[in-house]
Amino acid sequence: MAQKLDEYIEDNKAIIHKEIRKHLDKLAIPERLKSAMIYSIEAGGKKIRPILVMASYETYGQDKDKVISTAVALEMIHTYSLIHDDLPAMDDDDLRRGYPTNHIQFDEATAILAGDALLTYSFEIIANDPKLSSNEKVNIIQMLSSHSGPKGMVSGQILDMEAENHPVTLEELENIHNLKTGRLLSFAITSGAYLSGATTDQIEHLSTFSYYLGLIFQVQDDILDVTGDANKIGKPVGSDSSNEKSTYPKLLGMDGAIKQKQIYVDKAKQALQRADADKSYLILLTDYLTQRDH
Amino acid sequence: MAQKLDEYIEDNKAIIHKEIRKHLDKLAIPERLKSAMIYSIEAGGKKIRPILVMASYETYGQDKDKVISTAVALEMIHTYSLIHDDLPAMDDDDLRRGYPTNHIQFDEATAILAGDALLTYSFEIIANDPKLSSNEKVNIIQMLSSHSGPKGMVSGQILDMEAENHPVTLEELENIHNLKTGRLLSFAITSGAYLSGATTDQIEHLSTFSYYLGLIFQVQDDILDVTGDANKIGKPVGSDSSNEKSTYPKLLGMDGAIKQKQIYVDKAKQALQRADADKSYLILLTDYLTQRDH
Repeated sequence: MAQKLDEYIEDNKAIIHKEIRKHLDKLAIPERLKSAMIYSIEAGGKKIRPILVMASYETYGQDKDKVISTAVALEMIHTYSLIHDDLPAMDDDDLRRGYPTNHIQFDEATAILAGDALLTYSFEIIANDPKLSSNEKVNIIQMLSSHSGPKGMVSGQILDMEAENHPVTLEELENIHNLKTGRLLSFAITSGAYLSGATTDQIEHLSTFSYYLGLIFQVQDDILDVTGDANKIGKPVGSDSSNEKSTYPKLLGMDGAIKQKQIYVDKAKQALQRADADKSYLILLTDYLTQRDH
Repeated sequence: MAQKLDEYIEDNKAIIHKEIRKHLDKLAIPERLKSAMIYSIEAGGKKIRPILVMASYETYGQDKDKVISTAVALEMIHTYSLIHDDLPAMDDDDLRRGYPTNHIQFDEATAILAGDALLTYSFEIIANDPKLSSNEKVNIIQMLSSHSGPKGMVSGQILDMEAENHPVTLEELENIHNLKTGRLLSFAITSGAYLSGATTDQIEHLSTFSYYLGLIFQVQDDILDVTGDANKIGKPVGSDSSNEKSTYPKLLGMDGAIKQKQIYVDKAKQALQRADADKSYLILLTDYLTQRDH
């Protein structure tokens, strides 16, 4: 690891940001659609998913140019999912990361279409990347659609909505978060490793790692919703509670939630060790995500 | 052409319907999401796009098993676009093809997610088809995303919304319809020809054909909105007029619209001749779409 984690994150954020803008800027499309797509991509995200793609790739491989289109596509899919989740018919959020949500900044119809456009464009970007072989493109597209579509993230969103206003067990909560958040994190980790030429065993252990990373991510979100600083997290503290959402602190108490997070961290790090990845940026990113304050 | 057109349509509709159901039935996902996806796929569509894929393929190729996943993916993308177009924030339609629209039958959030799921799943179906080579998969995915995404159908939808409540020229109207309707028809025709091994010249002429076919499709829609039978078209007659939409009859008068349709038909048929496709089902389908009453 040649760089400190914060430099590594900043450098990769800059690379990804530049690449995403390149793909969006070149679109000769109606101005309103383009602005809405760019708006949510730019609106202050941590770009943690594409950074995980790159860190996973660099655990085993070199020349990270090969993995950038996958990182870009993933960030577009993540962004589309936020735009649609924020809609009045879904979570009805006016603020996201401290900025007005897409449908507030533009309008609902534009937000729906900007989401659809980002989702669709992500597959085109993979299909057009001259750095990938046809086999690699097909495998990445297969993984991306499977993790983000009806078997993955979209099911998580449906289950999350169904879980509102009625109690769920810890097992159900883990299943919802694994689908809603974990599947994209799993794609980030396994796609990067796949493109780097990691072994099937290594990818298998990283897949286990990503499962726990997703749960860490969510429990920390839930904790921040109770204890966080509204200015840092970019939305009002306590919004989960007022939405009557099932959360870790609600199910386990705050102490229980913190203990549960540590259980997930231990399991995540064990899996990293088995994947020969315990000297990579993935382990620093795990600590970073465990302790993040926004 | 071994069969009459109506038999050809019915046979292919049955094949496509069976294949789509196979792909949807096997999904182990929350029941609500699955039902909503199936509901709109089943809700009385003509399945004209996948039939065009197959007719275009069969103009030059044999063993149509090879083209079915492309036809299925296209119908899923078309269906997602209808679900999202019907939403309250977009066209706000309660009825589609005589059935309650998805968000009326389920709810808005489910409709948004069912659309997202169909869109995403369509790429997975292509990526997983064992009958296609990796190169073919990549090319089909490239074409499908390009025709349906921000450069294609989604831009058409944005422009269509922007055109409401203010007058547009015939040229602008053609551009909107080419994007909103024409790009998916163009994908249908050119993807089928590509997979059949048609020459670049033939595909080029078919692309021209599909451009005019899209305009025929739209002018006939506009004519039916004035003169059609509400029971056959499955929505109230005159809804375009009450929406203050720009239509061919409004721009050109009813006689002008009918004449304009004939101009498009002549150009479409010339292009078919140049593509050596004037003895195929494509020519019968052109007449069918020109004269359809629903």
